[in-house]
Amino acid sequence: MAKQLWKPSTILNPVPAVMVSCCDREGKPNIITIAWAGTINSKPPMVSISIRKERYSYNLIKEKRQFVINLTTRKLAFAADFCGVKSGRDVDKFEAMKLTCEKASVVDVPLIKESPVNIECTVKDIIELGSHDMFIAEIEAVNVDESIIDKNGRLCMEKADLICYSHGEYWSLEKSLGYFGYSITKKKKVLRRRTSNKKGR
Amino acid sequence: MAKQLWKPSTILNPVPAVMVSCCDREGKPNIITIAWAGTINSKPPMVSISIRKERYSYNLIKEKRQFVINLTTRKLAFAADFCGVKSGRDVDKFEAMKLTCEKASVVDVPLIKESPVNIECTVKDIIELGSHDMFIAEIEAVNVDESIIDKNGRLCMEKADLICYSHGEYWSLEKSLGYFGYSITKKKKVLRRRTSNKKGR
Repeated sequence: MAKQLWKPSTILNPVPAVMVSCCDREGKPNIITIAWAGTINSKPPMVSISIRKERYSYNLIKEKRQFVINLTTRKLAFAADFCGVKSGRDVDKFEAMKLTCEKASVVDVPLIKESPVNIECTVKDIIELGSHDMFIAEIEAVNVDESIIDKNGRLCMEKADLICYSHGEYWSLEKSLGYFGYSITKKKKVLRRRTSNKKGR
Repeated sequence: MAKQLWKPSTILNPVPAVMVSCCDREGKPNIITIAWAGTINSKPPMVSISIRKERYSYNLIKEKRQFVINLTTRKLAFAADFCGVKSGRDVDKFEAMKLTCEKASVVDVPLIKESPVNIECTVKDIIELGSHDMFIAEIEAVNVDESIIDKNGRLCMEKADLICYSHGEYWSLEKSLGYFGYSITKKKKVLRRRTSNKKGR
């Protein structure tokens, strides 16, 4: 089929929908759900999140220069949506969504206990882009729930039941289509890996 | 359950797995699959992609300062994996994966015809982070296949059958869990929207 030429828009999909926890100077916590987020570097591990200046969390993160990325699961989808729509100026999101503040290990910002993976970050740079500022951050520590670690200490991320965000909707990750490198691996090996790697829920 | 403290790592999941097309000075095209990518700004629409200096496409994009993000579908998963593993130094990926070069509208870099959404980008800045350089780019134009546009001109992204990448595996997006704002919408309205918005394949 033919293609239509459309004006520039933020049409990259799917993207993450992560719950970013932060707090003010007095330690009062807040959560903002962010879709403009991504990994940007491997060594050292770095992420970026982009936030509008008008958002309540913008100043909290700018002042504290720390935040935590909490990965979003199917169970947390409703809370993630709520934390993306409502403002921390009007509502205590931890309380409203019955989420639990947990102490982080390195940063002075709380984790969301109900999220299976919490990524503690320190802001290294803030770049003004227009509608959003991009916070470039280094990952300081990672907290992983034991429920997604197997007896050999291996991370079974598929047990976390993560979701993504595409064109205004939250989607579950249902079916693995292959692992990195499967296109050049001999067929027998792929089959063996597939059999031993079924989704554990 | 309790949490284990892990060392810093690139554990943000899921992320996109986009096929980025580029070309050298003579116009010879290449494709690199990138997971370190994301939207970073809305107005103007901007994206970032991070690339290791050692990668063949790194210099192509650095010199040309243009690239195209081609969204990855279930049908393109195998090719996306191949383009992420193999180097353009050794193989013509368009030829090997039987993909079709298509002329872009604004940039001087080809699109992948088989991808339903091609995002034409111009590099605005390159930031060295360590293992990767982050290319900050503005979206110049978007090409959308008519097969994912309905008769009213509305983009039905769910028809594109996009995939994402999580912890080393490609995943299909199977089931919508709700749209942005559903957590604060009255139940009747959500039900109505759900009924009229079933996945069209």
